[in-house]
Amino acid sequence: MGMLSEGLTQVLIPVAALIGIVFALLQWYLVSKVKVSGDSSNGLSDKLIEDEEDGVDNREASIKCAEIQNAISIGATSFLFTQYKYLSVFMCVFAAIIFLFLGSVKGFSTKSEACTYNKGSLCKPALANAAFSTIAFLLGALTSVLSGFLGMKIATYANARTTLEARKGVGKAFVTAFRSGAVMGFLLAANGLLVLYISILLFKLYYGDDWEGLYESITGYGLGGSSMALFGRVGGGIYTKAADVGADLVGKVELNIPEDDPRNPAVIADNVGDNVGDIAGMGSDLFGSYAESSCAALFVASISSFGISHDYTAMSFPLIISSVGIVVCLITTLFATDLFKIKDVSEIEPSLKRQLVVSTILMTVGIAMVSFFALPSEFTIFNFGTEKVVKNWHLFFCVAIGLWAGLVIGYTTEYYTSNAYSPVQDVADSCRTGAATNVIFGLALGYKSVIIPIFSIAVAIFVSFSLAAMYGIAVAALGMLSTIATGLAIDAYGPISDNAGGIAEMAGMSHKIRERTDALDAAGNTTAAIGKGFAIGSAALVSLALFGAFVSRAGINTVDVLTPKVFIGLIVGAMLPYWFSAMTMKSVGSAALKMVEEVRRQFKTIPGLMEGRAKPDYANCVKISTDASLREMIPPGALVMLTPLITGTLFGVETLAGVLAGSLVSGVQVAISASNTGGAWDNAKKYIEAGVSEHAKSLGPKGSDPHKAAVIGDTIGDPLKDTSGPSLNILIKLMAVESLVFAPFFAAHGGLLFKYL
Amino acid sequence: MGMLSEGLTQVLIPVAALIGIVFALLQWYLVSKVKVSGDSSNGLSDKLIEDEEDGVDNREASIKCAEIQNAISIGATSFLFTQYKYLSVFMCVFAAIIFLFLGSVKGFSTKSEACTYNKGSLCKPALANAAFSTIAFLLGALTSVLSGFLGMKIATYANARTTLEARKGVGKAFVTAFRSGAVMGFLLAANGLLVLYISILLFKLYYGDDWEGLYESITGYGLGGSSMALFGRVGGGIYTKAADVGADLVGKVELNIPEDDPRNPAVIADNVGDNVGDIAGMGSDLFGSYAESSCAALFVASISSFGISHDYTAMSFPLIISSVGIVVCLITTLFATDLFKIKDVSEIEPSLKRQLVVSTILMTVGIAMVSFFALPSEFTIFNFGTEKVVKNWHLFFCVAIGLWAGLVIGYTTEYYTSNAYSPVQDVADSCRTGAATNVIFGLALGYKSVIIPIFSIAVAIFVSFSLAAMYGIAVAALGMLSTIATGLAIDAYGPISDNAGGIAEMAGMSHKIRERTDALDAAGNTTAAIGKGFAIGSAALVSLALFGAFVSRAGINTVDVLTPKVFIGLIVGAMLPYWFSAMTMKSVGSAALKMVEEVRRQFKTIPGLMEGRAKPDYANCVKISTDASLREMIPPGALVMLTPLITGTLFGVETLAGVLAGSLVSGVQVAISASNTGGAWDNAKKYIEAGVSEHAKSLGPKGSDPHKAAVIGDTIGDPLKDTSGPSLNILIKLMAVESLVFAPFFAAHGGLLFKYL
Repeated sequence: MGMLSEGLTQVLIPVAALIGIVFALLQWYLVSKVKVSGDSSNGLSDKLIEDEEDGVDNREASIKCAEIQNAISIGATSFLFTQYKYLSVFMCVFAAIIFLFLGSVKGFSTKSEACTYNKGSLCKPALANAAFSTIAFLLGALTSVLSGFLGMKIATYANARTTLEARKGVGKAFVTAFRSGAVMGFLLAANGLLVLYISILLFKLYYGDDWEGLYESITGYGLGGSSMALFGRVGGGIYTKAADVGADLVGKVELNIPEDDPRNPAVIADNVGDNVGDIAGMGSDLFGSYAESSCAALFVASISSFGISHDYTAMSFPLIISSVGIVVCLITTLFATDLFKIKDVSEIEPSLKRQLVVSTILMTVGIAMVSFFALPSEFTIFNFGTEKVVKNWHLFFCVAIGLWAGLVIGYTTEYYTSNAYSPVQDVADSCRTGAATNVIFGLALGYKSVIIPIFSIAVAIFVSFSLAAMYGIAVAALGMLSTIATGLAIDAYGPISDNAGGIAEMAGMSHKIRERTDALDAAGNTTAAIGKGFAIGSAALVSLALFGAFVSRAGINTVDVLTPKVFIGLIVGAMLPYWFSAMTMKSVGSAALKMVEEVRRQFKTIPGLMEGRAKPDYANCVKISTDASLREMIPPGALVMLTPLITGTLFGVETLAGVLAGSLVSGVQVAISASNTGGAWDNAKKYIEAGVSEHAKSLGPKGSDPHKAAVIGDTIGDPLKDTSGPSLNILIKLMAVESLVFAPFFAAHGGLLFKYL
Repeated sequence: MGMLSEGLTQVLIPVAALIGIVFALLQWYLVSKVKVSGDSSNGLSDKLIEDEEDGVDNREASIKCAEIQNAISIGATSFLFTQYKYLSVFMCVFAAIIFLFLGSVKGFSTKSEACTYNKGSLCKPALANAAFSTIAFLLGALTSVLSGFLGMKIATYANARTTLEARKGVGKAFVTAFRSGAVMGFLLAANGLLVLYISILLFKLYYGDDWEGLYESITGYGLGGSSMALFGRVGGGIYTKAADVGADLVGKVELNIPEDDPRNPAVIADNVGDNVGDIAGMGSDLFGSYAESSCAALFVASISSFGISHDYTAMSFPLIISSVGIVVCLITTLFATDLFKIKDVSEIEPSLKRQLVVSTILMTVGIAMVSFFALPSEFTIFNFGTEKVVKNWHLFFCVAIGLWAGLVIGYTTEYYTSNAYSPVQDVADSCRTGAATNVIFGLALGYKSVIIPIFSIAVAIFVSFSLAAMYGIAVAALGMLSTIATGLAIDAYGPISDNAGGIAEMAGMSHKIRERTDALDAAGNTTAAIGKGFAIGSAALVSLALFGAFVSRAGINTVDVLTPKVFIGLIVGAMLPYWFSAMTMKSVGSAALKMVEEVRRQFKTIPGLMEGRAKPDYANCVKISTDASLREMIPPGALVMLTPLITGTLFGVETLAGVLAGSLVSGVQVAISASNTGGAWDNAKKYIEAGVSEHAKSLGPKGSDPHKAAVIGDTIGDPLKDTSGPSLNILIKLMAVESLVFAPFFAAHGGLLFKYL
């Protein structure tokens, strides 16, 4: 047994979660002190009288900010609620499928069964597992939806406040945007931990000593989290990019009006998109990763010596890691908001990068302490039919290598997507010869940016796999996600700053203020890319852990590539990311074409729009994005949700194992290259626009031929980096967790095609 | 034993090869009857007096044709000879590596050893195997180089003749281009078969009854073939696309002069590129696939009952299949050249597609006969440590399913890349909103086009793998390649027609003639895509067969994804196609930038060039392409050649097996999507240019905004479809065959890192 007592563990976890929630609320309170005034026509927005300080007395601009914020908030809220209607239907149908499929494993028997791993004991009936898996699924889904929704709320609350604070200086604006990101990060991390902790406690009331059944059922939590994340990412991704691409194609390319110009009818939809795609989608996605890696680790632990010997503290190792992570992130946040004050735009990016390093170093210490206090010095881990002897410092290495691999991925992503380094500058330079070379160089950059992340993932996998089998992989994923609160904070900071810039432009604020928000936004582009890197890296580890848990639960001991069943799964699985990307890219393309037509129509039919005398019909563009995204999210969603079910049922667990491995190793590459290519194009364009160096000036200014070529690259990158790329994380995770949940059904009744052929 | 006697087999194979060679020479003779006149300043070209017939009396144009042909031929020959200098160094070094590595397996012992599979018999010493593997490697390399060179020679011989025949009608031009393609196809197929047959005969003089050693050594033939193909494809691909992209960026985009305009200094380099990249590179590539699948099949057979019981006819099953293929293709060719006469441009594509169907149907009959006569009705096949009982009709299904999978891939490729169908038309339509949507739709099309080919490959793999283990896969690959002569003929037809169009433009021929060559060329674009589809599909099967042979030879019985060693191989292997593509794409981009600068310089510094009064300096552009391609082919080449050596030596055979499986399942997807995306963009542009339908007219004409957007897409597609995409075939095949050849070394001395850690 470890040194930490069961009672203390029972206290430590919920206390950490509550600390996280209180800290988030405190940050929210600090943000709320920025007052947004406005004679908004709608009663929903805040109507607080703004202090006139620091010589800022542009009352009209401030009222406009409030109006715009209100429009964005209403658009985002209404989209999410419409989406939730669809999702609630899906949730009910899928909950029924889970219950029926899992219930049918033992013919809906209500008799207790002999346990599989804990020999000699009696476990709860399969029907109970079906029922509790369904409940866990619904809990996960609701928590995921809540995470996304809260993120969106705080982001739309913070955007105008960041704009207004920018009048007082870049430092104040940065703190406002960052604090708002932190609200989301901490709420999400704490909430995820708390719901999981409480669910386990409640499930235990029924399961008692049957930990196998308990932690099998709890895997439904991960499935619920990720399936909501799928629709959030895909739907939100299509929404945001249809609006963005549509707005850019007419505004920037055809009419030569600036980005975020209020005359552009698609501009509100574009800003709404940032909140529903990049914020709500990302929130659901990372919550899904967190829930899945916890569930995978708990499941493997439950059939290892922790579970068999009922060592509660060791069993809760994954939750304790997350608890410590919340405290570490809390300290880290103070580095950005209180310990170092930003005085110049050049300090923004270092400050955000410092967050990564500080949280990683502190967390390493935290992991060491947890591994030492919570774990017995030696124990055994289930390893595909055999037991592997593991020492506590082995697990320290597993978690720590995941954490540090995340840092390496983050820094690599930054290198390939920030315009401070040569890769993006080379891409910008290639715009001299036009859009074609820009695209060729950008694609090559994306491909190249895959190398280091894959090697670091491979090293993390090798070390943690060798030291502690699939449990090692699961906790390595948790290690990468242990600083999720900080990761999400710097990630959410991006779209908030983006929105703040948009609001400044639309409210007609002065050039000085827009320069400040632009600087915040440019740093945000890079941190968004880093966030995606984390999301993909953790998704790779999580999927592998889930894959291992699936294989264990399905009772397979080898997944041999040298068998036809596995190999066809492998090659078809490697194809799925392409199929999925084809769907999502085409969806964005078609929706953007519709948006272009609408924007053109408005400029043609609304007299005085171009001259700024008439207002565009923003609502119609919002509607086009909403309708397109809701309609278009269904086919890719169906592909992901149905593939494991069909493969498992018709071809059996071996082929399904092949599909999971294939989609994992192929999807990671597509996702990383797509995200980084898009990020690089975006920042190559920003590099030319900002014109900071001699080289950049020689390519600009805005409107020059190289800049036009850069805009084309940026537009191509939009669906790659914000729709296809990040959705692929969920493809690989979700198929794995779904397979894990349905594993008993596939093992019992799957492979129909081979049985009857 | 089968019904075919050993003696008859010994006669049948060389006779079929000789028939192929004679038929190729006959086609060459028929092409040579088209006379090319010309007062060429160089003595190398043909100076035959042209018949003045059919009212064609444009003597000057004819002389110009001869001049241009001469320039292209000299450029291509000089490039290939320069490349061969580099390759000969590589060949010597690599031959030494093979000899040393394999020789060291048993410490350069010259003592005979107990056989591994044929228990109780005595086999030749490892040193002999090292020596003969080296010889086989050199033979394969030389045959590959010869194949590429002959192809280039006939293509540069035929291009101007096709142009001149176009004056007499499209039917005559078609027959000339097609016959020339057939010369290449038959020479290559017959040559490959003959050299392999003779090598086996000669090796047998030493090996006698030791068939294990004999067929182990012969695998070097495949390695030699593919390693030359690698440099041919990569070097040729960079050459052709640097010239093409460079020529287009200045010519079409900046100066608005037509494609192939003689004023463009890069135009000769562009036409040379078609011959060294698409012809010589493709020839080497398909020869490599053919050699490798034969070697993989022979190796597996030698350790199965065929080899153990010394059944020569059954052992020669792969060679007999290829022999029958030559005869089938001969009959098929007559359908295009003699049985159906082309009278209208609309008949070209159906005629080429008919080739695929006819050859497939005839070959199915041929396969049935060979399976029935050459094989015993029942025998056993080596299956990773066990023996599998197989019936002769099982093998019929294996070969036939490979053949038909090839047809499905061919037709799918046609559907996604021909502008007669909606996918390409949709891409063309998206050009309305600019280059960005064109690229988004094109990428989505490429991703989507992967689905059906992968499913057909998966079905082929499942059936052949289930019926006859790795031997089944190897003969399925041979099935797909059995109609290689026809496949190469329609494939080579494309670049020949492309060149013919270029020559017509440069020689200032009339609009009517250029319309005819354009129609030939448009059909050629689609057949080139089909050819690439075949090359990729067969590469996938070949690689899997080689992978299986490698695993057998390395003595591994399972490749379990659930072990860390294999999994890290899998994920890193899946990354390699991206690394490789990043290199090749960037190489094309950089070389194209250099070409752009040179073309701009010439237009600036040569007075009267734009007005057509002065001649450009073609040679300088040829030199830029040559230098760039030779320099840039080394890093990607090194990546492919060194990966198996480093992985095997440091990490051992399990990790290497993972790398091979990962690169196979990931590389196939990247290759197919890259080829088809590029093909679709090219034909979307051609669709707008040709303006045949109302829809197409609404997008055109040349120079319209949608057309400009289409040109950008076409330029981006160039490196994808002609450099990165097709080179990836070789990446996956070559790593597999190299692993196979070095397997004994890795098994004996590999995995150093794990041994000492």
